[in-house]
Amino acid sequence: MADHNALPLVVLAEKFASLPGIGMKSAQRLAYHVMSMEDAAVEDFAKALLDAKRNVRCCKCCQNLTEREICPICSDDERDKGIICVVESPKDVTAFERTREYCGVYHVLHGLLSPMDGVTPDKLRFKELLARISEGGVREVIMATNPTVEGDATAMYAAGLLKPLGIKVTRLAFGLPVGGILEYADEVTLYKALENRNDM
Amino acid sequence: MADHNALPLVVLAEKFASLPGIGMKSAQRLAYHVMSMEDAAVEDFAKALLDAKRNVRCCKCCQNLTEREICPICSDDERDKGIICVVESPKDVTAFERTREYCGVYHVLHGLLSPMDGVTPDKLRFKELLARISEGGVREVIMATNPTVEGDATAMYAAGLLKPLGIKVTRLAFGLPVGGILEYADEVTLYKALENRNDM
Repeated sequence: MADHNALPLVVLAEKFASLPGIGMKSAQRLAYHVMSMEDAAVEDFAKALLDAKRNVRCCKCCQNLTEREICPICSDDERDKGIICVVESPKDVTAFERTREYCGVYHVLHGLLSPMDGVTPDKLRFKELLARISEGGVREVIMATNPTVEGDATAMYAAGLLKPLGIKVTRLAFGLPVGGILEYADEVTLYKALENRNDM
Repeated sequence: MADHNALPLVVLAEKFASLPGIGMKSAQRLAYHVMSMEDAAVEDFAKALLDAKRNVRCCKCCQNLTEREICPICSDDERDKGIICVVESPKDVTAFERTREYCGVYHVLHGLLSPMDGVTPDKLRFKELLARISEGGVREVIMATNPTVEGDATAMYAAGLLKPLGIKVTRLAFGLPVGGILEYADEVTLYKALENRNDM
């Protein structure tokens, strides 16, 4: 924004622009939008930002974001504590919960292994995962990280860590997405779909 | 977000989703991003929201957003107060200022006439425009509203209001955008470009 613009507006636009996926033009539009909002709505927005940051923490058990000490999933007696689905981030928990089919629990690593970027195993929540497993009762760990180099490496690392403890470690199935069209599938997906074919 | 999510995160995501151009998925991603920000950065963001809303007001003269009583453009002695460029919103002032060619002043209407949506002339800043003109010294009013139905209607209304006062009222030129390709221009733009052709 040029210097004829009010400074607080420029500052606000810069804050919006610092968020992922919001460019400077959108950020300016959002800043102008805030000006047209009711005073109370802006105050609610500011409060929501602070509330989320202050009151949301990691669940002591699964490391998912929650406002309680133990999240609703971990404290739900109907969930099977014997199966742990290990994911990269809280977003992935939301994705699995949307299926309404999974009734085990989760473990959020808060990242994927990427030694090039300095993300070594000690930066992720593996220690907490091992602590949960050492308490006993865990039959299976499902590695549900993305099918990327980092996701695969993280799954491999976890398998190496957990298998010697006698835990069954599985990986999500990779293949054609449901509703997808074979013609448009990439080679690797198609190869995986062929390799992992099932009896009918 | 499903009910396993921390409530403050759901609230924050809803706030983001209430902004223009941000869907629920992006809003969730932004809420998660806020969780990964430093405490101080989140506090700065909340402060920027409140600061912008509390300290930015409309310039008493041109109605543009500013943190002063009279905005830097209106209080700049080098700007020609005899020419007023009338625009829909503060964003348009920024757009004109980027040209670095316009040295008159502005008047921000804060909307365009749209009787269907209840936006009648009394909802816009025409009263303030007439007050400026009644102080004398204004030679020309440039109607720089968008070339849309509402923009044209607003320009026509202003012309009807100001011409009887002996003020020269002009409208932005419409034609081919510079760098544009004739083949891809729509019919109306091409017709305008033909109609408004200039001697070489």
